[in-house]
Amino acid sequence: MSFTTTTRVRFADVDPAGIVFYPRYFEMLNGAVEDWFEQDLGLSFKDMHLGRRMGTPTVRLEAQFMAPSELGDVLTITITAREVGRSSCAITVLFRGDDRDRLSVDVVLVCMDLEARKSMPWPDVVRAKLQDQIVPAI
Amino acid sequence: MSFTTTTRVRFADVDPAGIVFYPRYFEMLNGAVEDWFEQDLGLSFKDMHLGRRMGTPTVRLEAQFMAPSELGDVLTITITAREVGRSSCAITVLFRGDDRDRLSVDVVLVCMDLEARKSMPWPDVVRAKLQDQIVPAI
Amino acid sequence: MSFTTTTRVRFADVDPAGIVFYPRYFEMLNGAVEDWFEQDLGLSFKDMHLGRRMGTPTVRLEAQFMAPSELGDVLTITITAREVGRSSCAITVLFRGDDRDRLSVDVVLVCMDLEARKSMPWPDVVRAKLQDQIVPAI
Amino acid sequence: MSFTTTTRVRFADVDPAGIVFYPRYFEMLNGAVEDWFEQDLGLSFKDMHLGRRMGTPTVRLEAQFMAPSELGDVLTITITAREVGRSSCAITVLFRGDDRDRLSVDVVLVCMDLEARKSMPWPDVVRAKLQDQIVPAI
Repeated sequence: MSFTTTTRVRFADVDPAGIVFYPRYFEMLNGAVEDWFEQDLGLSFKDMHLGRRMGTPTVRLEAQFMAPSELGDVLTITITAREVGRSSCAITVLFRGDDRDRLSVDVVLVCMDLEARKSMPWPDVVRAKLQDQIVPAI
Repeated sequence: MSFTTTTRVRFADVDPAGIVFYPRYFEMLNGAVEDWFEQDLGLSFKDMHLGRRMGTPTVRLEAQFMAPSELGDVLTITITAREVGRSSCAITVLFRGDDRDRLSVDVVLVCMDLEARKSMPWPDVVRAKLQDQIVPAI
Repeated sequence: MSFTTTTRVRFADVDPAGIVFYPRYFEMLNGAVEDWFEQDLGLSFKDMHLGRRMGTPTVRLEAQFMAPSELGDVLTITITAREVGRSSCAITVLFRGDDRDRLSVDVVLVCMDLEARKSMPWPDVVRAKLQDQIVPAI
Repeated sequence: MSFTTTTRVRFADVDPAGIVFYPRYFEMLNGAVEDWFEQDLGLSFKDMHLGRRMGTPTVRLEAQFMAPSELGDVLTITITAREVGRSSCAITVLFRGDDRDRLSVDVVLVCMDLEARKSMPWPDVVRAKLQDQIVPAI
């Protein structure tokens, strides 16, 4: 089962050509991941980072930009968990607007101990919830 | 009558101290102004910029930061129009969270012809709506 | 004596009108303040934030935008210290390009203990250097 | 032959964990591409976007994050052209600091006519210079 949220293309997101400057997509993507963690995995980024001193940096990312997005566009962002390891998680993030795919991003996140600066196993509760959500890539 | 919207402090907004990096407040402020124009003044930023080739740059800004905001905080942003001129508009933008003022910003916007790169009078419909909203500063 | 640095307007800084989106000016301003602290005051932002757990949040800011800046413009940023208090410092930051003032910003910074989340006195060495640099506003 | 430039990790670039928030790397990458176009390919982003109404959007991107970067780090960014097509160009962008690879990004850019919103052939002068620079991936 996937997680879905929406966002809107803001003035701050667009370039002189009137379309989204692509680094802004990754800010949107990160915002969607925050919502997913909090709503589906039971762990807010605030608790995670400031409380548990745990992070989820991106170690790998592959993006295909299919169609540009313009100022004012409403985008649907869908996150699908693909695979969960001891301390990593592969997800696919699809941005769509007006029934067209805008970009698709494959991301690998790693659970990191922010004090030790190295990877750590997912907390059991989080891993269990992640495993429940897995939809393997075709 | 004021316009109110809410936003949430994202990971992308906070600094190494865990609090909002202040330039991000101005991105939030600009997003709130976009919503206000579209919902209350009948003019979307898309139509304005890409269609009419009209912009509303900020010519003056005065901000007081009263209390820091943290990752995950939900902030209420209230925009109150203070004064409308031929081609300018003074507004006050107040950010609040958990019943505390976070920052208050006085902004002067100017209606600009993007082709000629100079100020132009507000379209009549916009000015009329702005005037209806005026709540003079005390 | 003032501190001067230069920066260049990047694609990431400009809006659909081809001019700097103003929150980006405040990122440039903050970058200039980083350089000033490191080069003139002997305190890098890294040592300050990650080592000493000390920050310098902005508590007040007043900006006047005199002329727009375009993609590719080289801007000179000049920081002049105006007044130093026990834990605060008032500075003026002027952006110029092609012999024209682009914006002028008066900023009040406060020295903050990031653990206690309250103001703290400037370290003596920093205050001494700040005082040497004061050029009172006319 | 590759193009090399340097940048510095700013306060604006780092997250609550004190390391670069990855969308900021893509802003740095885009800044490096701007310098490369202007210095090596003879085409500034200003002339390109505002004059010729031509853009170079990213259509594909693949990034591997090898080591985190911290506030104050000086990063070397090296751009190597890999392959040039009629209207596309594949490049590899490597970020290094203190003799360690931080991230490596494979990017495909496309030359776009901003009015027609479709791809267009590279101007001959640009393609010739791109071809001179090609270093095929191993």
